[in-house]
Amino acid sequence: MERNIKLIIEFDGTDYHGWQSQINASTVQDKLEKAIKKLTAVETKLYGCGRTDAGVHALNYVANFKTSISIPSGKIAYALNSLLPEDIVVKESLDVEESFNARFSAKSKKYRYSLYNSKFPSPLLRNRAMHVNYTLDVDAMAEAANHYIGTYEFTSFKASGSNQISDIRTMIDASVTKRDEIINFDILGTGFLYNMVRIMTGTLLSVGRGKLKPEEITKIIELKDRKKAGKTLPPHGLYLIEVNY
Amino acid sequence: MERNIKLIIEFDGTDYHGWQSQINASTVQDKLEKAIKKLTAVETKLYGCGRTDAGVHALNYVANFKTSISIPSGKIAYALNSLLPEDIVVKESLDVEESFNARFSAKSKKYRYSLYNSKFPSPLLRNRAMHVNYTLDVDAMAEAANHYIGTYEFTSFKASGSNQISDIRTMIDASVTKRDEIINFDILGTGFLYNMVRIMTGTLLSVGRGKLKPEEITKIIELKDRKKAGKTLPPHGLYLIEVNY
Repeated sequence: MERNIKLIIEFDGTDYHGWQSQINASTVQDKLEKAIKKLTAVETKLYGCGRTDAGVHALNYVANFKTSISIPSGKIAYALNSLLPEDIVVKESLDVEESFNARFSAKSKKYRYSLYNSKFPSPLLRNRAMHVNYTLDVDAMAEAANHYIGTYEFTSFKASGSNQISDIRTMIDASVTKRDEIINFDILGTGFLYNMVRIMTGTLLSVGRGKLKPEEITKIIELKDRKKAGKTLPPHGLYLIEVNY
Repeated sequence: MERNIKLIIEFDGTDYHGWQSQINASTVQDKLEKAIKKLTAVETKLYGCGRTDAGVHALNYVANFKTSISIPSGKIAYALNSLLPEDIVVKESLDVEESFNARFSAKSKKYRYSLYNSKFPSPLLRNRAMHVNYTLDVDAMAEAANHYIGTYEFTSFKASGSNQISDIRTMIDASVTKRDEIINFDILGTGFLYNMVRIMTGTLLSVGRGKLKPEEITKIIELKDRKKAGKTLPPHGLYLIEVNY
Protein backbone atom coordinates (compact mmCIF):
# COMPACT_ATOMS: atom_id res chain seq x y z
CA MET A 1 0.00 0.00 0.00
CA GLU A 2 1.35 3.42 -0.86
CA ARG A 3 1.64 5.77 2.08
CA ASN A 4 2.19 9.51 2.20
CA ILE A 5 4.69 10.52 4.88
CA LYS A 6 4.95 14.05 6.21
CA LEU A 7 8.28 15.12 7.69
CA ILE A 8 9.00 18.11 9.92
CA ILE A 9 12.64 19.10 9.61
CA GLU A 10 15.04 21.45 11.35
CA PHE A 11 18.17 22.43 9.47
CA ASP A 12 21.14 24.74 9.75
CA GLY A 13 21.33 26.22 6.25
CA THR A 14 24.90 27.50 6.59
CA ASP A 15 26.57 24.81 4.52
CA TYR A 16 23.79 24.27 1.96
CA HIS A 17 22.77 25.92 -1.27
CA GLY A 18 19.22 26.09 0.04
CA TRP A 19 16.51 23.46 0.07
CA GLN A 20 16.03 22.60 -3.56
CA SER A 21 18.15 20.13 -5.53
CA GLN A 22 20.45 21.69 -8.05
CA ILE A 23 23.34 20.55 -10.17
CA ASN A 24 26.79 20.59 -8.56
CA ALA A 25 25.64 21.97 -5.22
CA SER A 26 24.83 20.41 -1.89
CA THR A 27 21.22 20.99 -0.83
CA VAL A 28 19.03 19.91 2.05
CA GLN A 29 16.63 18.10 -0.31
CA ASP A 30 19.53 16.08 -1.74
CA LYS A 31 20.65 14.95 1.71
CA LEU A 32 17.13 13.89 2.66
CA GLU A 33 16.40 12.12 -0.61
CA LYS A 34 19.68 10.25 -0.25
CA ALA A 35 18.72 9.19 3.28
CA ILE A 36 15.23 8.12 2.13
CA LYS A 37 16.76 6.09 -0.67
CA LYS A 38 19.05 4.32 1.80
CA LEU A 39 16.08 3.61 4.08
CA THR A 40 13.61 2.46 1.42
CA ALA A 41 15.98 1.16 -1.26
CA VAL A 42 13.94 3.15 -3.79
CA GLU A 43 14.74 6.45 -5.51
CA THR A 44 12.07 8.74 -4.00
CA LYS A 45 10.99 12.28 -4.75
CA LEU A 46 10.61 14.48 -1.67
CA TYR A 47 8.14 17.37 -1.97
CA GLY A 48 9.23 20.43 0.01
CA CYS A 49 7.01 23.28 1.22
CA GLY A 50 9.05 25.76 -0.78
CA ARG A 51 12.50 26.91 -1.79
CA THR A 52 14.89 28.43 0.67
CA ASP A 53 18.04 30.35 -0.25
CA ALA A 54 21.59 29.34 0.60
CA GLY A 55 22.31 30.09 4.25
CA VAL A 56 18.65 30.31 5.31
CA HIS A 57 17.63 28.11 8.28
CA ALA A 58 14.46 26.25 9.17
CA LEU A 59 13.04 25.22 12.52
CA ASN A 60 10.02 23.35 11.12
CA TYR A 61 10.38 22.85 7.40
CA VAL A 62 7.71 20.51 6.01
CA ALA A 63 8.14 17.95 3.24
CA ASN A 64 6.34 14.77 2.14
CA PHE A 65 7.09 11.65 0.17
CA LYS A 66 5.22 8.57 -1.07
CA THR A 67 6.50 5.17 -0.05
CA SER A 68 5.41 1.57 0.40
CA ILE A 69 7.80 0.70 3.27
CA SER A 70 6.06 -0.74 6.30
CA ILE A 71 8.13 0.86 9.09
CA PRO A 72 5.87 2.64 11.64
CA SER A 73 5.67 6.33 10.75
CA GLY A 74 7.01 7.51 14.11
CA LYS A 75 10.19 5.47 13.61
CA ILE A 76 10.96 7.03 10.24
CA ALA A 77 12.35 10.19 11.90
CA TYR A 78 14.83 8.11 13.95
CA ALA A 79 15.82 5.99 10.96
CA LEU A 80 16.42 9.03 8.73
CA ASN A 81 18.34 10.89 11.44
CA SER A 82 20.76 7.99 11.69
CA LEU A 83 21.49 8.53 7.97
CA LEU A 84 21.62 12.35 7.99
CA PRO A 85 24.45 14.78 8.77
CA GLU A 86 24.05 16.59 12.11
CA ASP A 87 22.99 19.89 10.54
CA ILE A 88 19.69 18.30 9.38
CA VAL A 89 17.29 16.63 11.84
CA VAL A 90 13.84 15.17 11.19
CA LYS A 91 11.79 16.13 14.26
CA GLU A 92 8.55 14.41 13.30
CA SER A 93 7.37 11.81 10.78
CA LEU A 94 3.73 10.88 10.35
CA ASP A 95 1.28 9.29 7.95
CA VAL A 96 -0.96 11.81 6.22
CA GLU A 97 -3.79 11.54 3.69
CA GLU A 98 -2.86 10.81 0.10
CA SER A 99 -3.81 14.30 -1.09
CA PHE A 100 -1.43 16.10 1.28
CA ASN A 101 1.28 18.07 -0.51
CA ALA A 102 3.75 20.03 1.61
CA ARG A 103 3.74 22.92 -0.83
CA PHE A 104 0.23 23.14 -2.23
CA SER A 105 -1.62 22.21 0.98
CA ALA A 106 0.11 24.97 2.97
CA LYS A 107 -2.29 27.64 4.29
CA SER A 108 0.31 29.95 5.82
CA LYS A 109 3.96 30.23 6.76
CA LYS A 110 5.79 32.02 9.50
CA TYR A 111 9.27 33.43 9.06
CA ARG A 112 11.64 35.07 11.53
CA TYR A 113 14.50 37.41 10.79
CA SER A 114 16.98 37.75 13.67
CA LEU A 115 19.20 40.78 14.22
CA TYR A 116 22.05 40.94 16.72
CA ASN A 117 22.25 44.56 17.81
CA SER A 118 25.60 45.16 19.47
CA LYS A 119 28.80 47.13 19.08
CA PHE A 120 30.77 44.06 17.99
CA PRO A 121 29.65 40.92 16.14
CA SER A 122 29.12 37.74 18.15
CA PRO A 123 31.23 34.69 17.21
CA LEU A 124 28.59 32.45 18.76
CA LEU A 125 25.78 33.99 16.71
CA ARG A 126 27.60 34.30 13.40
CA ASN A 127 25.53 32.50 10.73
CA ARG A 128 22.54 32.79 13.12
CA ALA A 129 21.66 36.50 13.18
CA MET A 130 22.63 39.59 11.20
CA HIS A 131 24.93 41.86 13.14
CA VAL A 132 23.81 45.51 13.36
CA ASN A 133 26.16 47.84 15.24
CA TYR A 134 24.09 51.05 15.18
CA THR A 135 21.32 52.08 17.55
CA LEU A 136 17.83 50.98 16.56
CA ASP A 137 14.46 52.37 17.62
CA VAL A 138 12.73 49.06 18.27
CA ASP A 139 9.35 50.67 19.06
CA ALA A 140 9.35 52.41 15.68
CA MET A 141 10.26 49.09 14.00
CA ALA A 142 7.40 47.33 15.79
CA GLU A 143 4.98 50.05 14.69
CA ALA A 144 6.26 49.79 11.11
CA ALA A 145 5.85 46.00 11.10
CA ASN A 146 2.12 46.48 11.83
CA HIS A 147 1.77 48.25 8.50
CA TYR A 148 2.73 45.04 6.68
CA ILE A 149 -0.43 43.32 7.96
CA GLY A 150 -3.17 43.04 5.34
CA THR A 151 -3.66 41.99 1.72
CA TYR A 152 -1.53 44.01 -0.67
CA GLU A 153 0.40 43.82 -3.91
CA PHE A 154 3.89 43.52 -2.36
CA THR A 155 5.85 44.34 -5.55
CA SER A 156 8.11 46.75 -3.62
CA PHE A 157 9.23 43.83 -1.45
CA LYS A 158 10.09 41.38 -4.20
CA ALA A 159 13.57 40.77 -5.60
CA SER A 160 13.75 42.66 -8.89
CA GLY A 161 13.71 40.30 -11.84
CA SER A 162 11.81 37.55 -10.02
CA ASN A 163 8.63 36.30 -11.62
CA GLN A 164 5.47 35.40 -9.85
CA ILE A 165 2.01 35.30 -11.40
CA SER A 166 0.65 37.71 -8.83
CA ASP A 167 2.37 39.86 -6.23
CA ILE A 168 -0.70 39.92 -4.01
CA ARG A 169 -0.13 38.30 -0.64
CA THR A 170 -1.84 38.43 2.75
CA MET A 171 0.19 39.11 5.88
CA ILE A 172 -1.78 37.79 8.86
CA ASP A 173 0.48 38.91 11.67
CA ALA A 174 3.79 40.72 12.16
CA SER A 175 5.79 41.69 15.22
CA VAL A 176 9.17 43.02 16.32
CA THR A 177 10.44 41.94 19.73
CA LYS A 178 13.72 42.48 21.55
CA ARG A 179 15.33 40.25 24.15
CA ASP A 180 18.81 41.22 25.31
CA GLU A 181 20.70 42.05 22.13
CA ILE A 182 18.50 39.99 19.80
CA ILE A 183 15.74 41.68 17.80
CA ASN A 184 13.33 39.31 16.07
CA PHE A 185 10.97 40.24 13.26
CA ASP A 186 8.27 37.54 12.98
CA ILE A 187 5.85 37.50 10.10
CA LEU A 188 2.97 35.14 9.33
CA GLY A 189 1.57 35.21 5.81
CA THR A 190 -0.34 33.13 3.27
CA GLY A 191 2.68 33.19 1.00
CA PHE A 192 5.82 35.19 0.31
CA LEU A 193 7.50 36.66 -2.76
CA TYR A 194 11.14 36.02 -3.55
CA ASN A 195 13.40 37.64 -0.89
CA MET A 196 10.32 39.27 0.63
CA VAL A 197 11.14 38.80 4.33
CA ARG A 198 14.74 39.88 3.83
CA ILE A 199 13.59 43.08 2.07
CA MET A 200 10.86 43.69 4.67
CA THR A 201 13.43 43.45 7.47
CA GLY A 202 15.87 45.67 5.55
CA THR A 203 13.09 48.26 5.36
CA LEU A 204 12.46 47.91 9.10
CA LEU A 205 16.15 48.68 9.64
CA SER A 206 15.67 51.95 7.73
CA VAL A 207 12.84 52.73 10.16
CA GLY A 208 14.94 51.65 13.15
CA ARG A 209 17.73 54.05 12.29
CA GLY A 210 15.33 56.94 11.62
CA LYS A 211 15.59 57.12 7.83
CA LEU A 212 11.95 56.19 7.37
CA LYS A 213 8.87 56.81 9.49
CA PRO A 214 6.79 53.74 10.45
CA GLU A 215 3.76 54.97 8.47
CA GLU A 216 5.85 55.28 5.30
CA ILE A 217 5.67 51.48 4.96
CA THR A 218 2.15 51.91 3.60
CA LYS A 219 3.37 54.39 0.97
CA ILE A 220 6.19 52.05 -0.07
CA ILE A 221 3.67 49.22 -0.55
CA GLU A 222 1.45 51.51 -2.67
CA LEU A 223 4.33 52.60 -4.92
CA LYS A 224 4.98 49.00 -6.08
CA ASP A 225 8.61 49.85 -6.73
CA ARG A 226 11.46 47.72 -5.37
CA LYS A 227 13.71 50.79 -5.22
CA LYS A 228 11.52 52.45 -2.57
CA ALA A 229 12.00 49.63 -0.02
CA GLY A 230 15.13 48.92 2.03
CA LYS A 231 18.06 46.60 1.43
CA THR A 232 17.83 42.85 1.01
CA LEU A 233 19.45 41.55 4.20
CA PRO A 234 21.81 38.54 4.16
CA PRO A 235 20.28 35.04 4.35
CA HIS A 236 21.87 33.87 7.61
CA GLY A 237 19.40 35.81 9.81
CA LEU A 238 16.35 34.19 8.20
CA TYR A 239 14.41 31.21 9.62
CA LEU A 240 11.34 29.38 8.38
CA ILE A 241 9.57 28.94 11.71
CA GLU A 242 6.35 27.09 10.86
CA VAL A 243 4.09 25.98 8.05
CA ASN A 244 0.37 25.69 8.75
CA TYR A 245 -2.05 23.40 6.93
CA MET B 1 55.94 53.86 27.95
CA GLU B 2 54.82 50.33 28.63
CA ARG B 3 51.07 49.91 28.86
CA ASN B 4 48.99 47.04 30.16
CA ILE B 5 46.00 46.29 27.93
CA LYS B 6 43.01 44.29 29.12
CA LEU B 7 40.95 42.50 26.48
CA ILE B 8 37.44 41.07 26.81
CA ILE B 9 36.92 38.34 24.27
CA GLU B 10 34.03 36.25 22.96
CA PHE B 11 34.89 33.04 21.18
CA ASP B 12 33.24 30.00 19.68
CA GLY B 13 35.44 27.18 20.98
CA THR B 14 34.21 24.57 18.50
CA ASP B 15 37.25 24.63 16.24
CA TYR B 16 39.91 25.22 18.91
CA HIS B 17 41.89 23.05 21.26
CA GLY B 18 40.95 25.41 24.06
CA TRP B 19 42.49 28.69 25.10
CA GLN B 20 46.07 27.80 25.89
CA SER B 21 48.87 27.52 23.34
CA GLN B 22 50.06 24.01 22.68
CA ILE B 23 52.23 22.30 20.13
CA ASN B 24 50.57 21.26 16.85
CA ALA B 25 47.09 22.46 17.78
CA SER B 26 45.11 25.59 17.00
CA THR B 27 44.20 27.55 20.13
CA VAL B 28 42.46 30.84 20.86
CA GLN B 29 45.58 32.24 22.53
CA ASP B 30 47.64 31.47 19.40
CA LYS B 31 45.21 33.34 17.17
CA LEU B 32 45.19 36.37 19.46
CA GLU B 33 48.98 36.44 19.94
CA LYS B 34 49.40 36.24 16.17
CA ALA B 35 47.00 39.18 15.71
CA ILE B 36 48.79 41.21 18.43
CA LYS B 37 52.12 40.52 16.75
CA LYS B 38 50.75 41.77 13.43
CA LEU B 39 49.41 44.89 15.11
CA THR B 40 52.45 45.71 17.24
CA ALA B 41 55.22 44.11 15.18
CA VAL B 42 56.49 42.57 18.42
CA GLU B 43 56.20 39.01 19.70
CA THR B 44 53.94 39.48 22.73
CA LYS B 45 52.80 37.17 25.50
CA LEU B 46 49.09 37.29 26.21
CA TYR B 47 48.02 36.38 29.76
CA GLY B 48 44.66 34.60 29.88
CA CYS B 49 42.31 34.30 32.87
CA GLY B 50 42.57 30.52 32.76
CA ARG B 51 42.60 27.43 30.60
CA THR B 52 39.53 26.29 28.75
CA ASP B 53 39.08 22.87 27.19
CA ALA B 54 38.62 22.12 23.50
CA GLY B 55 35.07 22.97 22.45
CA VAL B 56 34.32 25.23 25.44
CA HIS B 57 33.02 28.73 24.61
CA ALA B 58 33.45 32.12 26.23
CA LEU B 59 31.23 35.19 26.23
CA ASN B 60 33.63 37.40 28.19
CA TYR B 61 37.03 35.80 28.46
CA VAL B 62 39.63 38.19 29.91
CA ALA B 63 43.28 38.46 28.91
CA ASN B 64 45.99 41.11 29.15
CA PHE B 65 49.24 42.00 27.45
CA LYS B 66 52.02 44.57 27.83
CA THR B 67 52.83 46.79 24.89
CA SER B 68 54.39 50.12 24.00
CA ILE B 69 52.23 50.86 20.94
CA SER B 70 50.51 54.24 21.06
CA ILE B 71 47.16 53.34 19.46
CA PRO B 72 44.24 54.48 21.69
CA SER B 73 43.10 51.56 23.83
CA GLY B 74 39.52 51.63 22.52
CA LYS B 75 40.78 51.18 18.95
CA ILE B 76 42.77 48.06 19.77
CA ALA B 77 39.63 45.89 19.74
CA TYR B 78 38.76 47.04 16.21
CA ALA B 79 42.34 46.60 15.00
CA LEU B 80 42.62 43.09 16.42
CA ASN B 81 39.21 42.06 15.09
CA SER B 82 40.32 42.97 11.58
CA LEU B 83 43.13 40.44 12.04
CA LEU B 84 41.15 37.68 13.74
CA PRO B 85 38.99 34.86 12.34
CA GLU B 86 35.25 35.39 12.80
CA ASP B 87 34.97 32.85 15.63
CA ILE B 88 37.01 35.12 17.93
CA VAL B 89 35.96 38.73 18.64
CA VAL B 90 37.53 41.25 21.01
CA LYS B 91 34.58 43.10 22.55
CA GLU B 92 36.52 45.54 24.68
CA SER B 93 40.10 46.79 25.00
CA LEU B 94 41.21 49.14 27.74
CA ASP B 95 44.29 50.41 29.58
CA VAL B 96 44.61 48.96 33.07
CA GLU B 97 47.10 49.40 35.89
CA GLU B 98 50.48 47.73 35.54
CA SER B 99 49.76 45.19 38.27
CA PHE B 100 46.61 43.81 36.61
CA ASN B 101 46.93 40.16 35.61
CA ALA B 102 43.92 38.48 33.98
CA ARG B 103 44.51 35.28 35.90
CA PHE B 104 45.84 36.29 39.31
CA SER B 105 43.72 39.42 39.75
CA ALA B 106 40.46 37.54 39.16
CA LYS B 107 38.14 37.53 42.19
CA SER B 108 35.44 35.27 40.76
CA LYS B 109 34.23 33.63 37.57
CA LYS B 110 30.83 32.71 36.29
CA TYR B 111 30.20 29.68 34.10
CA ARG B 112 27.08 28.48 32.34
CA TYR B 113 26.28 24.96 31.18
CA SER B 114 23.47 24.80 28.61
CA LEU B 115 21.26 21.78 28.06
CA TYR B 116 18.83 21.38 25.15
CA ASN B 117 16.01 19.22 26.48
CA SER B 118 14.03 17.86 23.56
CA LYS B 119 13.09 14.61 21.85
CA PHE B 120 15.47 15.25 18.95
CA PRO B 121 18.76 17.15 18.79
CA SER B 122 18.75 20.65 17.30
CA PRO B 123 20.96 21.26 14.25
CA LEU B 124 21.00 24.97 15.08
CA LEU B 125 22.16 24.35 18.66
CA ARG B 126 24.67 21.61 17.98
CA ASN B 127 28.04 22.68 19.46
CA ARG B 128 26.09 25.16 21.62
CA ALA B 129 24.17 23.03 24.14
CA MET B 130 24.19 19.40 25.22
CA HIS B 131 21.17 17.50 23.91
CA VAL B 132 19.18 15.62 26.57
CA ASN B 133 16.19 13.64 25.29
CA TYR B 134 14.74 12.41 28.59
CA THR B 135 12.38 14.27 30.92
CA LEU B 136 14.07 16.39 33.58
CA ASP B 137 12.71 17.67 36.90
CA VAL B 138 13.99 21.22 36.64
CA ASP B 139 12.74 22.22 40.09
CA ALA B 140 14.72 19.38 41.67
CA MET B 141 17.80 20.44 39.69
CA ALA B 142 17.40 24.04 40.88
CA GLU B 143 17.12 22.84 44.49
CA ALA B 144 20.20 20.64 44.04
CA ALA B 145 22.20 23.54 42.59
CA ASN B 146 21.62 25.49 45.81
CA HIS B 147 23.57 22.84 47.70
CA TYR B 148 26.70 23.74 45.74
CA ILE B 149 26.73 27.21 47.33
CA GLY B 150 29.31 27.58 50.10
CA THR B 151 32.97 26.86 50.77
CA TYR B 152 33.83 23.17 50.47
CA GLU B 153 36.54 20.78 49.41
CA PHE B 154 35.12 19.90 45.99
CA THR B 155 37.25 16.78 45.38
CA SER B 156 34.19 14.80 44.22
CA PHE B 157 33.76 17.31 41.39
CA LYS B 158 37.32 17.30 40.09
CA ALA B 159 38.57 15.25 37.13
CA SER B 160 40.37 12.26 38.61
CA GLY B 161 44.11 12.54 38.16
CA SER B 162 44.14 16.35 38.05
CA ASN B 163 46.38 18.13 40.49
CA GLN B 164 45.58 21.26 42.37
CA ILE B 165 47.21 22.40 45.60
CA SER B 166 43.86 22.62 47.35
CA ASP B 167 40.40 21.44 46.34
CA ILE B 168 38.71 24.06 48.51
CA ARG B 169 36.64 26.53 46.50
CA THR B 170 33.82 28.91 47.30
CA MET B 171 30.66 28.88 45.23
CA ILE B 172 28.94 32.26 45.62
CA ASP B 173 25.79 31.64 43.63
CA ALA B 174 24.20 28.86 41.58
CA SER B 175 20.94 28.59 39.67
CA VAL B 176 19.06 26.41 37.21
CA THR B 177 16.63 28.14 34.85
CA LYS B 178 14.54 26.91 31.93
CA ARG B 179 13.36 28.89 28.92
CA ASP B 180 11.61 26.97 26.18
CA GLU B 181 13.76 23.87 25.66
CA ILE B 182 16.97 25.37 27.06
CA ILE B 183 18.00 24.65 30.65
CA ASN B 184 20.90 26.75 31.93
CA PHE B 185 22.98 25.99 35.00
CA ASP B 186 24.81 29.16 36.06
CA ILE B 187 27.47 29.08 38.74
CA LEU B 188 29.56 31.88 40.21
CA GLY B 189 32.63 30.88 42.19
CA THR B 190 36.00 32.14 43.37
CA GLY B 191 37.68 29.44 41.34
CA PHE B 192 37.00 26.07 39.78
CA LEU B 193 38.73 22.70 39.71
CA TYR B 194 39.47 20.85 36.47
CA ASN B 195 36.19 19.80 34.75
CA MET B 196 34.28 20.96 37.83
CA VAL B 197 31.32 22.65 36.11
CA ARG B 198 30.90 19.77 33.66
CA ILE B 199 30.83 17.27 36.55
CA MET B 200 28.50 19.49 38.62
CA THR B 201 26.06 19.66 35.70
CA GLY B 202 26.35 15.91 35.10
CA THR B 203 25.38 15.42 38.76
CA LEU B 204 22.42 17.78 38.32
CA LEU B 205 21.30 15.57 35.41
CA SER B 206 21.25 12.60 37.81
CA VAL B 207 18.98 14.68 40.06
CA GLY B 208 16.85 15.79 37.11
CA ARG B 209 16.12 12.21 36.08
CA GLY B 210 15.39 11.11 39.64
CA LYS B 211 18.49 9.03 40.33
CA LEU B 212 19.65 11.38 43.07
CA LYS B 213 17.74 13.54 45.55
CA PRO B 214 18.66 17.25 45.64
CA GLU B 215 19.94 17.03 49.22
CA GLU B 216 22.33 14.20 48.28
CA ILE B 217 24.60 16.83 46.70
CA THR B 218 25.81 17.70 50.19
CA LYS B 219 26.66 14.07 50.90
CA ILE B 220 28.55 13.75 47.62
CA ILE B 221 30.61 16.83 48.50
CA GLU B 222 31.41 15.36 51.95
CA LEU B 223 32.53 12.02 50.49
CA LYS B 224 35.35 13.68 48.47
CA ASP B 225 35.18 10.88 45.93
CA ARG B 226 34.93 11.55 42.19
CA LYS B 227 33.04 8.28 41.71
CA LYS B 228 30.09 9.49 43.81
CA ALA B 229 29.34 12.45 41.50
CA GLY B 230 27.72 12.32 38.05
CA LYS B 231 29.22 12.13 34.59
CA THR B 232 31.53 14.70 33.07
CA LEU B 233 29.37 16.32 30.38
CA PRO B 234 30.79 17.20 26.95
CA PRO B 235 32.55 20.55 26.52
CA HIS B 236 30.27 22.12 23.91
CA GLY B 237 27.57 23.09 26.46
CA LEU B 238 30.02 25.05 28.64
CA TYR B 239 30.50 28.84 28.54
CA LEU B 240 32.74 31.14 30.53
CA ILE B 241 30.27 33.97 31.12
CA GLU B 242 32.19 36.55 33.13
CA VAL B 243 35.32 37.17 35.16
CA ASN B 244 35.14 39.64 38.02
CA TYR B 245 38.09 41.65 39.40
